[in-house]
Amino acid sequence: MVTKQEFVQNIIGHRKAEIRNHASEFAPANIALCKYWGKRDRELNLPVTDSLSISMGHLGTRTEVRISPTGKDTVIFNGKVLSSDAEAAAKILDFAGLMKPADSPPLEISTVNNIPTGAGVASSASGFAALTQALNSFFGYALTGTELSLLAGLGSGSASRSVFTGFVHRHRGQRADGMDSFSEPIPYRWPELRIGLLTVSGKQKKVGSGAGMNRTAETSVLFRSWSQQVQQDMELLMQALEQKDFPLLGATAENNALAMHACMLSAKPPLIYWMPETLAVIQKVQELRHDGLQLYLTIDAGPNVKLLYEAQDEETVLEAFPDAETVRPFTALI
Amino acid sequence: MVTKQEFVQNIIGHRKAEIRNHASEFAPANIALCKYWGKRDRELNLPVTDSLSISMGHLGTRTEVRISPTGKDTVIFNGKVLSSDAEAAAKILDFAGLMKPADSPPLEISTVNNIPTGAGVASSASGFAALTQALNSFFGYALTGTELSLLAGLGSGSASRSVFTGFVHRHRGQRADGMDSFSEPIPYRWPELRIGLLTVSGKQKKVGSGAGMNRTAETSVLFRSWSQQVQQDMELLMQALEQKDFPLLGATAENNALAMHACMLSAKPPLIYWMPETLAVIQKVQELRHDGLQLYLTIDAGPNVKLLYEAQDEETVLEAFPDAETVRPFTALI
Repeated sequence: MVTKQEFVQNIIGHRKAEIRNHASEFAPANIALCKYWGKRDRELNLPVTDSLSISMGHLGTRTEVRISPTGKDTVIFNGKVLSSDAEAAAKILDFAGLMKPADSPPLEISTVNNIPTGAGVASSASGFAALTQALNSFFGYALTGTELSLLAGLGSGSASRSVFTGFVHRHRGQRADGMDSFSEPIPYRWPELRIGLLTVSGKQKKVGSGAGMNRTAETSVLFRSWSQQVQQDMELLMQALEQKDFPLLGATAENNALAMHACMLSAKPPLIYWMPETLAVIQKVQELRHDGLQLYLTIDAGPNVKLLYEAQDEETVLEAFPDAETVRPFTALI
Repeated sequence: MVTKQEFVQNIIGHRKAEIRNHASEFAPANIALCKYWGKRDRELNLPVTDSLSISMGHLGTRTEVRISPTGKDTVIFNGKVLSSDAEAAAKILDFAGLMKPADSPPLEISTVNNIPTGAGVASSASGFAALTQALNSFFGYALTGTELSLLAGLGSGSASRSVFTGFVHRHRGQRADGMDSFSEPIPYRWPELRIGLLTVSGKQKKVGSGAGMNRTAETSVLFRSWSQQVQQDMELLMQALEQKDFPLLGATAENNALAMHACMLSAKPPLIYWMPETLAVIQKVQELRHDGLQLYLTIDAGPNVKLLYEAQDEETVLEAFPDAETVRPFTALI
């Protein structure tokens, strides 16, 4: 088995560090249209399937790295210094430790999320992507996007996709050392695409994604077909992007998300991230679509819903869902 | 392909009818602990998997058959004469037509359901089972239970199980002519077993079971694992019955039902029989179980929930769900 240390050394071992005074990098959050659920390697966070996401424009994480003025490794989160035994600080410093050269000074790592709290958009994806990029800049490794995507994935599987913008494809890969489980941008733009964030609940979920994935993989019989589901959906999504076919994109993304939740539902004991309100939103979307609106949805491991629609329908969508927070994934890229 | 007529003739073709003046038979409703979802033969209603149910005690259908005093085939449903072009009347008369000998007089078929309206307990299962049994008695065919289960299954797949009481196993069978797709009683009794019917909505479902099964089988990728799910669950349920292991029985039945709904959820378009209240009940059951109560649930193709528990917990269950209607499956059999 390959350890995290070996994985990182495979990528940065041959690079010479040129430590700078300061680095600042931004990474966007992302919403998977084809979900990542299940690990083929738990140590390295390698996925059991491919996945495909759309980045969230200006929503994400900015991370700055500098030489610590206090002489001690320090983590500042949204402007607040974290205690060194806080879980978030430990995770960030552990990750930084993997990428540090032997002669690194103590670091001050300051990270700011501009993702609306409780909107059901994971900050770990943009967080680990921004951290990876900022450490790369600070240490002067000059890593490629592919290499950054591999490293970020070690922190959080979905972070691998957040080192790029627009549509991003993470490969499952086959290799035990994980070197083919990288992400790459898909060169299609879709400026009219909109995402509507619907907050059903801002409560912390009871079962984290990692534990949830493992329970699903270990106990759900239906999960045995998940790879086939993803294989079909990746093909349909690529076709939708090539042909700019929104109903195909939306229906495929929605089916993929519901199939992921179906796998969770069939785990033992059942893993249910939805709340009754989630189901009410799903049914409202079904009704609106029945009435002719091109509106679809996706749901991650939580109760909140992300609406998928195009610019022309924004008014109608916001009339039906006045609380939706609109994201224009390609605005920041224009 | 075998037609319905051929199927019926394979069973009653060698029997000599001895027509009586009157016959009256009762069949109980049943709740599947391992669900029937998907047909291997749509014409003959042959299932794609085995299934296992518990009969619902005194809840069910009584059907009487006599020579029609009006000289015309007549259907009376819950005391009311149905118009001959009503869908229910046509279904019943079509089915009776398959079992009639050439010299049958016109029939009056009177059927009474005592199943609470809208409780989410299918009356088609007990209805077709009682009809099959009453026609068998009226025509004096003296068919065996196995033969009755085959015939009843032609009317409604789950009716095959309603010709027996207690725990009943319907076999998938392999033969194209369906002659091995019969049901048989499982000789275990469980007098302490209770079912709590929770009515979430009495509304007619938008997509009937037949159409829902076909959509699931045709479009759900996860449904490819459904046969494996059932195979596992049938083994676990038989083990639970042998060992009288209620947590195993409950957890398996619940997982099987949720897996069936998971398959529906991953159909295209998604097939969602639940209402937000259904999910609220599921989560309440999870919480109560987390607190130590041995309470499980199952859900058929609708929004209503059936609670599974044992007599010793009835008071606690009814405190949590005061609207639940209690069924004692083995009371009628004592």
